[in-house]
Amino acid sequence: MSIVYLVPGNMTGGPYGLKELKRREKLLKDWSFNPSKVKVYDVPNGGSSIESSYEEIASIIPAVDRLSEITKYENIDAVILGCFGDPGLDVFREMFDFPIIGPAQTSMHTACQLGHKFSVITIFDSMLNMAEKQVHEYGLDHHLASVRAINIPVLELLKDLDVTYKKMSKLADKIVNEDRADAILLGCMTMSFSGLDKKIEKKTGIPVLNAGRTSLKFAESLLSMDLSHSKITYPFPPKLAKTQKEKKKRA
Amino acid sequence: MSIVYLVPGNMTGGPYGLKELKRREKLLKDWSFNPSKVKVYDVPNGGSSIESSYEEIASIIPAVDRLSEITKYENIDAVILGCFGDPGLDVFREMFDFPIIGPAQTSMHTACQLGHKFSVITIFDSMLNMAEKQVHEYGLDHHLASVRAINIPVLELLKDLDVTYKKMSKLADKIVNEDRADAILLGCMTMSFSGLDKKIEKKTGIPVLNAGRTSLKFAESLLSMDLSHSKITYPFPPKLAKTQKEKKKRA
Amino acid sequence: MSIVYLVPGNMTGGPYGLKELKRREKLLKDWSFNPSKVKVYDVPNGGSSIESSYEEIASIIPAVDRLSEITKYENIDAVILGCFGDPGLDVFREMFDFPIIGPAQTSMHTACQLGHKFSVITIFDSMLNMAEKQVHEYGLDHHLASVRAINIPVLELLKDLDVTYKKMSKLADKIVNEDRADAILLGCMTMSFSGLDKKIEKKTGIPVLNAGRTSLKFAESLLSMDLSHSKITYPFPPKLAKTQKEKKKRA
Amino acid sequence: MSIVYLVPGNMTGGPYGLKELKRREKLLKDWSFNPSKVKVYDVPNGGSSIESSYEEIASIIPAVDRLSEITKYENIDAVILGCFGDPGLDVFREMFDFPIIGPAQTSMHTACQLGHKFSVITIFDSMLNMAEKQVHEYGLDHHLASVRAINIPVLELLKDLDVTYKKMSKLADKIVNEDRADAILLGCMTMSFSGLDKKIEKKTGIPVLNAGRTSLKFAESLLSMDLSHSKITYPFPPKLAKTQKEKKKRA
Amino acid sequence: MSIVYLVPGNMTGGPYGLKELKRREKLLKDWSFNPSKVKVYDVPNGGSSIESSYEEIASIIPAVDRLSEITKYENIDAVILGCFGDPGLDVFREMFDFPIIGPAQTSMHTACQLGHKFSVITIFDSMLNMAEKQVHEYGLDHHLASVRAINIPVLELLKDLDVTYKKMSKLADKIVNEDRADAILLGCMTMSFSGLDKKIEKKTGIPVLNAGRTSLKFAESLLSMDLSHSKITYPFPPKLAKTQKEKKKRA
Amino acid sequence: MSIVYLVPGNMTGGPYGLKELKRREKLLKDWSFNPSKVKVYDVPNGGSSIESSYEEIASIIPAVDRLSEITKYENIDAVILGCFGDPGLDVFREMFDFPIIGPAQTSMHTACQLGHKFSVITIFDSMLNMAEKQVHEYGLDHHLASVRAINIPVLELLKDLDVTYKKMSKLADKIVNEDRADAILLGCMTMSFSGLDKKIEKKTGIPVLNAGRTSLKFAESLLSMDLSHSKITYPFPPKLAKTQKEKKKRA
Repeated sequence: MSIVYLVPGNMTGGPYGLKELKRREKLLKDWSFNPSKVKVYDVPNGGSSIESSYEEIASIIPAVDRLSEITKYENIDAVILGCFGDPGLDVFREMFDFPIIGPAQTSMHTACQLGHKFSVITIFDSMLNMAEKQVHEYGLDHHLASVRAINIPVLELLKDLDVTYKKMSKLADKIVNEDRADAILLGCMTMSFSGLDKKIEKKTGIPVLNAGRTSLKFAESLLSMDLSHSKITYPFPPKLAKTQKEKKKRA
Repeated sequence: MSIVYLVPGNMTGGPYGLKELKRREKLLKDWSFNPSKVKVYDVPNGGSSIESSYEEIASIIPAVDRLSEITKYENIDAVILGCFGDPGLDVFREMFDFPIIGPAQTSMHTACQLGHKFSVITIFDSMLNMAEKQVHEYGLDHHLASVRAINIPVLELLKDLDVTYKKMSKLADKIVNEDRADAILLGCMTMSFSGLDKKIEKKTGIPVLNAGRTSLKFAESLLSMDLSHSKITYPFPPKLAKTQKEKKKRA
Repeated sequence: MSIVYLVPGNMTGGPYGLKELKRREKLLKDWSFNPSKVKVYDVPNGGSSIESSYEEIASIIPAVDRLSEITKYENIDAVILGCFGDPGLDVFREMFDFPIIGPAQTSMHTACQLGHKFSVITIFDSMLNMAEKQVHEYGLDHHLASVRAINIPVLELLKDLDVTYKKMSKLADKIVNEDRADAILLGCMTMSFSGLDKKIEKKTGIPVLNAGRTSLKFAESLLSMDLSHSKITYPFPPKLAKTQKEKKKRA
Repeated sequence: MSIVYLVPGNMTGGPYGLKELKRREKLLKDWSFNPSKVKVYDVPNGGSSIESSYEEIASIIPAVDRLSEITKYENIDAVILGCFGDPGLDVFREMFDFPIIGPAQTSMHTACQLGHKFSVITIFDSMLNMAEKQVHEYGLDHHLASVRAINIPVLELLKDLDVTYKKMSKLADKIVNEDRADAILLGCMTMSFSGLDKKIEKKTGIPVLNAGRTSLKFAESLLSMDLSHSKITYPFPPKLAKTQKEKKKRA
Repeated sequence: MSIVYLVPGNMTGGPYGLKELKRREKLLKDWSFNPSKVKVYDVPNGGSSIESSYEEIASIIPAVDRLSEITKYENIDAVILGCFGDPGLDVFREMFDFPIIGPAQTSMHTACQLGHKFSVITIFDSMLNMAEKQVHEYGLDHHLASVRAINIPVLELLKDLDVTYKKMSKLADKIVNEDRADAILLGCMTMSFSGLDKKIEKKTGIPVLNAGRTSLKFAESLLSMDLSHSKITYPFPPKLAKTQKEKKKRA
Repeated sequence: MSIVYLVPGNMTGGPYGLKELKRREKLLKDWSFNPSKVKVYDVPNGGSSIESSYEEIASIIPAVDRLSEITKYENIDAVILGCFGDPGLDVFREMFDFPIIGPAQTSMHTACQLGHKFSVITIFDSMLNMAEKQVHEYGLDHHLASVRAINIPVLELLKDLDVTYKKMSKLADKIVNEDRADAILLGCMTMSFSGLDKKIEKKTGIPVLNAGRTSLKFAESLLSMDLSHSKITYPFPPKLAKTQKEKKKRA
């Protein structure tokens, strides 16, 4: 049995490599109530990072397929989608019965419980609209203070942590003083796993949410309560269900 | 040069077949200000219909690829996404510069200009949430009267038009009398091409929007005004742009 | 048969004169799919421009009367209200069965389909509230980035196009950079007919909507689809209907 | 000095006649803190009742003109627009400096202070949209429980008060039990002056707001506090101001 | 019979003392249509001022008890809660049948009738969220321009009126020029009784609302109309009602 | 060290008694990742149940005092407010630094992550408005399907579990079929501890949230992530801070 953190792209073959994948698994185990259950997988035929709608959508079906494959040899309790865009949240919930966690959705709802308004730090200025639309999609506009971009590509965020910290720290100051936010979301999983969350939190004095850690906690919580999304709400696609049934009959 | 109506699935190989594809092309030409420009394509390696989030998302990348291929031998002016889910609207706008029309988005905005509130007729009860979320995504909750489902699969809508009309007509009565809508959207392209719109309009006395026809008009309008979505708003994915540039250099 | 663009005031007798009226008719014909159908009328007993609620409301009944008169000798297909305030939109829809186009309503809904948020350039600072209230009335607050005023009176906008362009261009820069809008609406018909829209579009890189041209396209689209507002939604005033009936009886 | 209740139509010449106008003046005096100050005027060249957008808009300019005329021989402290449509609220505020009271606006804001949600009883089913749009215009959708129509013409409401009461009472029961409203607004001035408000209030157990009386109280309150709408917010139309200035100069 | 203005704390024993309490009573009498009816009480066992959620909540039950006590020897017509936080508005309405006026609620609804958007001047930066949440609670976010803090403690506001005026005046300028508000609310009763409202109004040219005076007017208005909150909406707590009934039986 | 579940009233002295308090502690321990840390306390000088705004507000200060007292002899990690009204959530967060969990807030945000819309089952019809206002306060109106009341007093919910189950089950059916909710919240802690949640979940097929269990999970999650509300957002009341400082100085 396991909680799977699914990187919806090819981390192993990318610049961060297997080492980073293992480092994240190690961190998640450290954060977990039950370390032995956490596993990190990636999608070998996926992209290297997600910085546009195109890359987000392109990641979904390969990730669903990868997960289907994993379920064949492993009992899965819950899955965390390893990207702040929550790519395919509804799709995964239709296809699988176990809880599917969206890091953005979970950290936004957590932030709403720690203060009045939150801000999101995203990757590029070209993604500001995407981020605002995501908050709107989750019905949380009322709680949004601002979205600001760090303008460092995902695959360079961990290159020089000092540079990343300085830029992030500058944004955080504006978020607190100009946007009057009560919490900060690190709006990218590589930011969340950068280890900078607690440093920024100390500096600003407001909660900084690590989306990876928040997702893990929500997964563990749901499992502990034996809760998942309803299959009435997210039904398995009717046409596929029919096909599968007919296949079984014939078999 | 052409306005392409892109069925994001394999209609030719499905139960409706090439005949239906050609019938739709004929209808679009009939509706057009400039018939010679309209063409209908489908996606041979796509699914047969879209009745879930999974099928919607699965249709996008093959449809983008298909369109890229078509652009190699054809000058395209504008594209209509041939599904009321507007699958991949943002993705297509990132990838292409010419106008991309979402039938739901266009018919919803048209409906808002003909009355105060509109209702949508969707396929299955299991899709009511999907439809409501789409209206919310477009920021038009204020104008939504209701979503109701006809509960006939897409691929059976044209089987017996009398049955379809009776069911649709019953829903339309409820929409007018109980939900007090001022306009009705046929929330599926096969409904829109069923030829029932004007019949329902006559019966209810409120405008009934044919999403295919509405989309064609909006495409023609944008072209006539030399307007498209901004590439600042929908930038070509930065990482891909870089890769393409490097490729060119090396070549 | 004709699409009438109705200037709700006395342009012929004002500083711009018949020449400007004819110039606009010429432009509309140039923009049209069917030039022979477009006609521009004004309201001889109307005001010279609309820059306040008072002037907006004062324009409506004379414009309705003028249109009634025109219908006596001309078959009208659709009417465009020639003012960005959409003065009397609901009134005209009650009184007439053919489509009535509001340039603000149409260009706002068009803008929503080209990007996430739009900004409006209005005439005076004293009209900022009016413009914001109009966006709210149409239920589109979610899509509004900002309203900014050019502070040049309507009747001086065409005096020195360089001055107008410079001021408009400055506002457009702020709209793009500070307000992060994805589209710009020229919030006055004289601005729309100034010929500056494409120049501003080129400069800013985001779509600039010419409300006159957008309205023409929407009128042509509705006619092509045989659609109009429902008379259930906008019923002819019951008391007047009764009076007319009684008159006919007596006659 | 006086608080003027301005019927925006020709009551004297209509079926209710001068008697009704005087009866309303008598009631307002009875309700007033300062009876000697209240006066009721109508607009001799106006319509007989307002039951559509057309009639509402048509009433405004004659009513403004009538008021301008009255100001020539009478010092006016405040004006109540004698129609629940608040016809021309913004226009009157631009043209005059003293407080202009909209009965709908005032009774809606009063209702919000007596409970969570209110319902409006309007005249015809054809006016339900108009009423809902008015609530939206005032930014109070959050507080609206429902709008329901009595379907008795304005000019017949006082014909047989028993009939009117029975119909109103039936609606009120639905409003309380089905719509769960906390207050009822009589959405027409003739309803408000019918004397049925307190009877319905006793029957339902929730506050019933008489828009005439509420408006009088708000007028008296503003005067007592020396408050009015800001002329920055509702500036006198700039073009008219210029014309008037030039006229004075020449004189 | 009397309108009671209830200071929900111990003013008599605090730095402002009985003198200030009497000064406020004098002002309210001066403002009243019926001076002999107005009385000011405080809560001897209450706090000295309210500048946090804790102090606001802590004030409620002692204030309810104090009011219950007063009702034993005095007929009360209406009560004004003497704090801009409207502490315990729902609680008081459950416990008492006569109108309970919340100064913030009343002045916000009044402001909405004098212009499009209002701003609130609150005490501390630490209270900005509290103020914004209050506006949201009353469903008036649409009408909020901004909240700004004067950062002078309540108990020092009257110390040096020149200092207070200068700071308030500076904020008011920003409110008009940067936040584009149409009205200003003095968001603290001590500000409202400072006598600075009309001075700020003259300086800014937009209405400035004195929450004490506005509340008095609303109390007088409701009494004059024989209106109060419904006891269906704010029922006396069922369990307490039962206990009281049983007590009576036994007695 | 401990997670304290604080019943904000006198359970020990009430009809349910110490037995029920211990039963709840047992359940919380069973549900916990770390059973030894969970403790349940009540407030001996508090009321017996909360079924009105009055009782809710009356519970807060005694509960704050009780908690202050407990902190003197026990290290507390986090506190769960043991009432679905989340009484005093902001107050507790001002007064204490460790996480304060509101069961309604937490279960609402959890529900939003399991489906599109949720419904709440509350105690009395007289509390429907209270419940709707709470959802609005948390900015989640968009996600609310309905509130329905079971109309069994809190202190009788556990009397006959069959009766309670039957009524709850009937409501749940309406919630699924008429209100189209995707999740159900048991809107009272006694309901949450009744053991009926999983039974209703099985019957309806949609997630049923036990607010006690959800709160425990959120408390454990926050502690595991070393997160709490920001003290900038919820500052200790400035006046009290000053007093405490002065006290210390003198001591």
